[in-house]
Amino acid sequence: MPANKDTAIDALIDKIKDMGNPTVVGLDTRLHYIPQEIKQKAFAQHGETPKGAAEAMFLFNKAVIDAVFDIVPAVKPQVAMYEQFGADGMSAYILTARYARARGMTVIGDIKRGDISSTAEAYSNGHLGRVYIEQTPHEIYQEDFVTVNPYMGADAVSPFLSDCRAYNKGIFVLVRTSNPSSVQLQELQTTSGLVYEHIGRLVAEWGKDFIGRHGFSSVGAVVGATAPEQAARLRQIMPRVFFLVPGYGAQGASAVDLSVCFKNKSGAIVNSSRGIIDAHHNEKYVDLAKKGFEKAIRQAAVDMRADLWKVL
Amino acid sequence: MPANKDTAIDALIDKIKDMGNPTVVGLDTRLHYIPQEIKQKAFAQHGETPKGAAEAMFLFNKAVIDAVFDIVPAVKPQVAMYEQFGADGMSAYILTARYARARGMTVIGDIKRGDISSTAEAYSNGHLGRVYIEQTPHEIYQEDFVTVNPYMGADAVSPFLSDCRAYNKGIFVLVRTSNPSSVQLQELQTTSGLVYEHIGRLVAEWGKDFIGRHGFSSVGAVVGATAPEQAARLRQIMPRVFFLVPGYGAQGASAVDLSVCFKNKSGAIVNSSRGIIDAHHNEKYVDLAKKGFEKAIRQAAVDMRADLWKVL
Repeated sequence: MPANKDTAIDALIDKIKDMGNPTVVGLDTRLHYIPQEIKQKAFAQHGETPKGAAEAMFLFNKAVIDAVFDIVPAVKPQVAMYEQFGADGMSAYILTARYARARGMTVIGDIKRGDISSTAEAYSNGHLGRVYIEQTPHEIYQEDFVTVNPYMGADAVSPFLSDCRAYNKGIFVLVRTSNPSSVQLQELQTTSGLVYEHIGRLVAEWGKDFIGRHGFSSVGAVVGATAPEQAARLRQIMPRVFFLVPGYGAQGASAVDLSVCFKNKSGAIVNSSRGIIDAHHNEKYVDLAKKGFEKAIRQAAVDMRADLWKVL
Repeated sequence: MPANKDTAIDALIDKIKDMGNPTVVGLDTRLHYIPQEIKQKAFAQHGETPKGAAEAMFLFNKAVIDAVFDIVPAVKPQVAMYEQFGADGMSAYILTARYARARGMTVIGDIKRGDISSTAEAYSNGHLGRVYIEQTPHEIYQEDFVTVNPYMGADAVSPFLSDCRAYNKGIFVLVRTSNPSSVQLQELQTTSGLVYEHIGRLVAEWGKDFIGRHGFSSVGAVVGATAPEQAARLRQIMPRVFFLVPGYGAQGASAVDLSVCFKNKSGAIVNSSRGIIDAHHNEKYVDLAKKGFEKAIRQAAVDMRADLWKVL
């Protein structure tokens, strides 16, 4: 891939640099995060139904995006929160992704899909590429990046690589996740190092043709901030792999913990979900929220940027 | 869990025994499988759009289900094929699952989801349990079983176990998949045996409270027929774990290959997708298909049952 301006990872890194903010806001939107006035409006129109819930989620997400789009480079909608409400939820997911892109934000679809190649192709075509209906191509989800599960090996990943190449998209492959039980598999000792190290090497290999002008690949890795030693090890193993870092804030990791994910003040983007999108219910911001929940959300994003900059 | 008649795995095993057929028909519905007359009808109404594609898929799936429901105990819709068409596709997935259940078939949702516990809970609530909108519970997908990815360990699985317990549902955890590159991770040698053996032991442990009156657990495993030695080893490691077996037919495995997955003529259900639902395009059935594509599909299911019985 030529080192052109439109490479997915270059476009993301440019935005991070412009805003001085390596933050991605996780849109893991839950109904109890959403202010009553938004829910009332949606439920008045559609009832307390999946359609009403989906409408409330989209209205809320729009407000979140409007509150942060000029200071945060990316959003990461977690598809599970939408998928659980069926087709209506998926509509809200798609509308959210499109709205964020229209506002200039990079969209990282947190889908964690992985399946045999012919099936992975369907996921990839839908999320990153095009689906064909008879002779006509359709863009369905329009994310810039999606997350991918590596349990099934290269077969499960290669269709995504094809679409990354064809449409200048990117992926983040799960390597070392932020949850406590990740150790059950990911930290097993193998003849090729620990499982997560082995997967890290595979990801570096898969991404070697996708390196952009900032020196990082559009084939990135999910590396949890909750395991700093492992993250530091992965930073060594995968010097050109960009990290998507969950676990900051609500999951317990601090800015100091995740500083090892960076390289020359670049190379990583840190996710915060609840900590930002539910800030209006946080005691710290509750006074500010009286002037509008969006103000609390924006202030939490400002504070996170300051917290990250202290350690970069 | 008491060994009652309604345990998910017991209900499935009862149907398998009643029909003498350990087959699940994979509804990996692709547009080129669907006969022109169905597509023309759907596209005439909705255009060559995602909605039209979804309508064609559902009409076709209904015909497949009608053709086999009295001789095949279960269907396995592959959600990727529906998800790629966005919200309309998800509607077709949900309608398909409901139609199959209304016809008395067990529905195994092939979703391969896996995420940290709070996210896995959303997947599980949507697919197996209930989602709450304000105070009201809603059943969204209504599958009997779903497939689950173990890369993140127990956290990613435990919410599904809660819903299996609460609603008499089941899961199949990916252990040894049928695709060629599964070896990249699953066959690594670790200090706890090969990766797939280690995962197999975890699955057996997760399922020990879910064993029904037939002696198998509602927490099952996906074990590919394409690797008979590994399947035989897993049959030893997990004597009470029921196997969902992909890889028969189009992926290259024969009935002899997968016979090792069974135990006393039970303990496994074998998936065929293309081999059955695209039988009308197979030279072997092309004459029969002239009398109706459903006849070719039914005959392929009859022939698969006979093929499996030879080796049981």
